[in-house]
Amino acid sequence: MERRYTEDELIASVFAPIAGQAALGLADDAALLPASSDGLVVTTDALVSGVHFFADDPPGMIARKALRVNLSDLAAKGAEPLGFLLALALPSDWTNDWLHAFASGLGEDAGAYHCPLLGGDTVATPGTLTISITALGRAPRGCFVARRGARAGDAIYVTGTIGDAALGLALRLEAVASLKARGQGGLDREPSGSPLAKQARDFLLGRYLLPQPRVALAPALREHASAAMDISDGLAGDLTKLTRVSNIGAVVELARVPLSPAAREAIAIDPTLFDVAMTGGDDYEILCCVRGDSAGFEAAARNSSISVTKIGEATADAGPPVFLDAQKNIKVFNRLSFSHF
Amino acid sequence: MERRYTEDELIASVFAPIAGQAALGLADDAALLPASSDGLVVTTDALVSGVHFFADDPPGMIARKALRVNLSDLAAKGAEPLGFLLALALPSDWTNDWLHAFASGLGEDAGAYHCPLLGGDTVATPGTLTISITALGRAPRGCFVARRGARAGDAIYVTGTIGDAALGLALRLEAVASLKARGQGGLDREPSGSPLAKQARDFLLGRYLLPQPRVALAPALREHASAAMDISDGLAGDLTKLTRVSNIGAVVELARVPLSPAAREAIAIDPTLFDVAMTGGDDYEILCCVRGDSAGFEAAARNSSISVTKIGEATADAGPPVFLDAQKNIKVFNRLSFSHF
Repeated sequence: MERRYTEDELIASVFAPIAGQAALGLADDAALLPASSDGLVVTTDALVSGVHFFADDPPGMIARKALRVNLSDLAAKGAEPLGFLLALALPSDWTNDWLHAFASGLGEDAGAYHCPLLGGDTVATPGTLTISITALGRAPRGCFVARRGARAGDAIYVTGTIGDAALGLALRLEAVASLKARGQGGLDREPSGSPLAKQARDFLLGRYLLPQPRVALAPALREHASAAMDISDGLAGDLTKLTRVSNIGAVVELARVPLSPAAREAIAIDPTLFDVAMTGGDDYEILCCVRGDSAGFEAAARNSSISVTKIGEATADAGPPVFLDAQKNIKVFNRLSFSHF
Repeated sequence: MERRYTEDELIASVFAPIAGQAALGLADDAALLPASSDGLVVTTDALVSGVHFFADDPPGMIARKALRVNLSDLAAKGAEPLGFLLALALPSDWTNDWLHAFASGLGEDAGAYHCPLLGGDTVATPGTLTISITALGRAPRGCFVARRGARAGDAIYVTGTIGDAALGLALRLEAVASLKARGQGGLDREPSGSPLAKQARDFLLGRYLLPQPRVALAPALREHASAAMDISDGLAGDLTKLTRVSNIGAVVELARVPLSPAAREAIAIDPTLFDVAMTGGDDYEILCCVRGDSAGFEAAARNSSISVTKIGEATADAGPPVFLDAQKNIKVFNRLSFSHF
């Protein structure tokens, strides 16, 4: 076996190339960021192998997902990325190649999102691969879009399309199960007569593998949103969290919730998957409330090339959101959200 | 079994009570810190069960150690704590009681060191308990004490006493081995005729269990130090890192390196333990260089009630530090530092 890097070599050859200036070449114990007239937004998210991603996912994708879920939080708060710190717990079977691929994916996104590596810690673990990232962002002029702050009458919006990642995960899990029960049905029946086109399947799998954080929407949120959060545990449950802290209610027209063509195709095959789409995790789209100038928000979103869709309205009756189906009947979900915990 | 908290309950009842104001009650996805005219210092350290602590250590102690190793980094940079973020990967056997004890220890130190919890993420892991903490500090007027910056002629100082934690770990590991080989000797021969007094043993074990970050020294370091770092991987190896990035050499008189009475007692029993003390990890003392006004530095340290000891001097010949024994002979260590990795 190729000799593996020492810790110092690993830092110098794998991580230093993707570090920002404030990281001092990763040759110090901390990074220094200059004073700023902006507020500082901080968030942390940890990803565990076998829980938040699959151990055999491409290492670059794992790294990018770990960074992107944090970028998604910054975006929802209206913050611009400043940089991130990485705590990486590596199980004993790591290789130099795996680490280079991991760092390569990480560096690609660090560059694309202007969010350099500021520091980190690499440790050995007898357990599973665990990636903890803390992202720092700046809140221009102290602007911060809280989860709390929505009021009755505010329009409720989401970005992108909802449920793709949850459907992608369902496909992925079925693929795992199908190793034991091949040909027993489910969505992933390809190649023996798949009801879901390969293109749709790949799209949904890709949406689970690699979230698209809506970083470009941050300025529009700062300008127009009364409250916002990213959707990580399912639309239904996350909207419930938002209305609870804002002490409001909400009415959502489910027919308005934006679905991708692939999700529509999957749901047409198996209508029970609609609930999965509305309550499953890993969307990393943004849920926000807008007071007053909806047209202004929509124009600002268009300018940032992020699609937004109005799905409902905040109401004065504090309580769980009311979901209406196409016939205006109340739809009750068996569970509201996905929990890895 | 008692019903365990849901993730929301866990945040509200365990962690929200120790959160700072900027954490927004831990009911948001990020924390907001106001703009400041100070620089921002950020550092991260991860601790893994079975690697950085023992799984059966008291949960409050595990939590405090995890925070303190980060506070130690801030202190070495001359930074004042602002707050921290916690990413906690919990294995499946966690209990509410364990978590309350963990948070209680964490809250105690968060209060004592004025370093409130700002945010976090709690996830399930099929692996081992992993605690990743990112600490934020402020660098008044942009002052930051880098690891790089020492020059020939600078005096080299350390805080506290060196090697206690490494000896404590040695005792602890021997205690584990002694479950299989009781009475086969080593330091921990108690109660069947211990050569190391219980008081000394307890002191060394305590120094491993709970570091004492030298937070109070930060102002003196800002004022007087040309370079500094905390000693986490052993004095010999960490001084080597400091001289390498500063492109200098160093001469250290080993007889000057401050040892606790307990460490002296242990080394008197087994002289080979001196090398363990000089090269073992987990001291979390501060190593720093001072140019010119050594008396001023010593007075400032005295005012902050932190003991400092001059152990040597930086030299112009770039290269590994030279360690001299009491007879001024060069002492060569078989290995320079401890690596968990």
